[in-house]
Amino acid sequence: MMQNFTYNIPTEIYFGKGSIANLPSAVRKFGGSKVLLLYGGGSIRRIGLLDETIALLTKAGIAYSLLGGVEPNPRIATVREGIRICREEGCDMLLPVGGGSTLDCAKAIAAGTPYEGDAWDIVLDNAKIDSIDVLPIITILTMAATGSEMDGYAVISNPETKQKLGMGHLKLYPKASVLDPVYTYSLPKRQTAAGIADILSHIFEVYFNHIPGTVIQDRVMEALIQVLVECGPKACKEPENYDARANLMWTSSWAINGFIACGKSAPWPVHSMEHQLSAVYDVTHGEGLAVLTPVWMEKTLNERTVDLFVSYGVGVFGLDPTKEKYEIARQAIQKTSEFLFETLGMPKTLRELGITSKDAFEAMADKALEDGTEECFTPLSKSDVLAIYEASY
Amino acid sequence: MMQNFTYNIPTEIYFGKGSIANLPSAVRKFGGSKVLLLYGGGSIRRIGLLDETIALLTKAGIAYSLLGGVEPNPRIATVREGIRICREEGCDMLLPVGGGSTLDCAKAIAAGTPYEGDAWDIVLDNAKIDSIDVLPIITILTMAATGSEMDGYAVISNPETKQKLGMGHLKLYPKASVLDPVYTYSLPKRQTAAGIADILSHIFEVYFNHIPGTVIQDRVMEALIQVLVECGPKACKEPENYDARANLMWTSSWAINGFIACGKSAPWPVHSMEHQLSAVYDVTHGEGLAVLTPVWMEKTLNERTVDLFVSYGVGVFGLDPTKEKYEIARQAIQKTSEFLFETLGMPKTLRELGITSKDAFEAMADKALEDGTEECFTPLSKSDVLAIYEASY
Repeated sequence: MMQNFTYNIPTEIYFGKGSIANLPSAVRKFGGSKVLLLYGGGSIRRIGLLDETIALLTKAGIAYSLLGGVEPNPRIATVREGIRICREEGCDMLLPVGGGSTLDCAKAIAAGTPYEGDAWDIVLDNAKIDSIDVLPIITILTMAATGSEMDGYAVISNPETKQKLGMGHLKLYPKASVLDPVYTYSLPKRQTAAGIADILSHIFEVYFNHIPGTVIQDRVMEALIQVLVECGPKACKEPENYDARANLMWTSSWAINGFIACGKSAPWPVHSMEHQLSAVYDVTHGEGLAVLTPVWMEKTLNERTVDLFVSYGVGVFGLDPTKEKYEIARQAIQKTSEFLFETLGMPKTLRELGITSKDAFEAMADKALEDGTEECFTPLSKSDVLAIYEASY
Repeated sequence: MMQNFTYNIPTEIYFGKGSIANLPSAVRKFGGSKVLLLYGGGSIRRIGLLDETIALLTKAGIAYSLLGGVEPNPRIATVREGIRICREEGCDMLLPVGGGSTLDCAKAIAAGTPYEGDAWDIVLDNAKIDSIDVLPIITILTMAATGSEMDGYAVISNPETKQKLGMGHLKLYPKASVLDPVYTYSLPKRQTAAGIADILSHIFEVYFNHIPGTVIQDRVMEALIQVLVECGPKACKEPENYDARANLMWTSSWAINGFIACGKSAPWPVHSMEHQLSAVYDVTHGEGLAVLTPVWMEKTLNERTVDLFVSYGVGVFGLDPTKEKYEIARQAIQKTSEFLFETLGMPKTLRELGITSKDAFEAMADKALEDGTEECFTPLSKSDVLAIYEASY
């Protein structure tokens, strides 16, 4: 039976070419008097977006501070630096411009600025956010992947403790997000593919699940995967194909904003296993997911899960529903591998990601288990997780 | 190219069996001190929902006034009566319990109560709502059909002027809606089917559209139609099948809350034609739509539209994509007819709906044209609309 749920996505989305024009009115609507403009590497300079944003703010008379250099896996030290700037320079709104990492970092700063203790405490204990007046966040997205533009989650790394932890709260939803597909034109093929693998994994983590009766969620998830299969390769081949970029961008939001998980919540085993990978080795999240996914699927296929693999194969890849069910399921896994490693050309093994030793696997498996991989549809014990790491190597 | 859009659905949804338990906290959260509890016929008494709602309000110390008897096509006179009660008895929140009609009526009351002039003025000119502080609305839904629980639209009838007009505004979105599939168990087969036809039409009106490049919207619409095809007949046969009712209910919201129309807005020709039918003859909206839909599809099929009919047939009914495209398209229309008139057993002609004369068709066609049927994907002239009415007779 479909689980009960509360659906509540308050984020306002301005979607399409030139939709940054909505920024000044949004800053006013959501009460920003001075914004912290947060960004990552040089790409937003290169495409002119940093200048464009600053020009818009200046023209509208909106004050701002700047913080660049947010890491691909944002670190708690950067969060602390953002908090320092907000406090010292009086910023009362976050304006992250970038991909999921920059947006995630902004969320942690938004919660950490009004909090008296150290920001890492909030990451460790999200319930502290209940009593915090989180600063409003408006995001400008430049990469379709994490869905952070329309959800209340963030992932923050702490290199000292070798931890990469998710934090989530309703108060962390952006008030508004600018989604302009043109900003993703300059994204290299490799990062575009990593984003697609990330979106795909967000859907799989919910789709392969033991809650029955969720027909609308299941059919919509198959629809979203079809979009990735149709538009992903186009975006890789023609980086300035507006509709391919637009469909990827909007799909990335809906893959993780909570809609597909309504009535169907469960642990996310592949993300748990991958977070350990990128915490220890700093690999690209989407590439780590791509390597682990087909291996995990093979491990997950059994009598309880086979019908879902059949639905997936028939609904997404149009496989022949009259074939034997394990044959369809294995074909569906094969199609997934082909899509990731042949069509998108992603790295296929942990070694290709630069991981040259298995030494950390045991400790990583221990940490993955802390996220509840044993409570999954196909429960994964420590030895299962280790076997997945080994087979992915 | 996908159109630019703003996506903004602020309604909070409490979904599932027993989710009415959220009502008292929602009334407080959205600032209600006294609610106008609005309902239609006797069904909410019969299933015990009126008593349950009143008991919850009473236990929580929330004052209320009552207004029953809202019509299936809510009339402006009932809106005026609701406004009178709100003003005289000091209600500052609307609590409609029922189907789309009751919810629509509540929206008009919510806008009309703080408005100094007559409520029909607002229906005629929605821009007046810009400067009105609309009363907050919390809805309790008992029928899956109109999507009014999660959108900012209402349709109000004025028998004196023989008008049935839509009104819409961002301020008319409910603050929160309780969606408990159990409340739809008692809905008779005929009304369940009418609801399904209504949901289906909401999707068709957006799907058969000239905006290219909307892959996510198109695939999701096919997904939603698949839900109707799978769960609709189950709900008709087993009225207490929780998952069938739950999937229909949630699908009805997503068919019209604006999501599928993002980047793909266009006129709604079948609704325009049907609104004239129910304005003049007071037929059930979903039944009027069912009769008109396949006839309109045949009229709409041409060289510009045929590929969409192919996508529809392949994506929803699994038709063989290797066949000739007009053959697939005609099969898809045929499948639609079979679903409505054979599987769901709906009335197939206007005569079966009790319309015994064609006298009003000419005036109805004139009014349908006012809604912009000439600007549709396949533009419909007055003679086209007349031909559709004739062929449906």
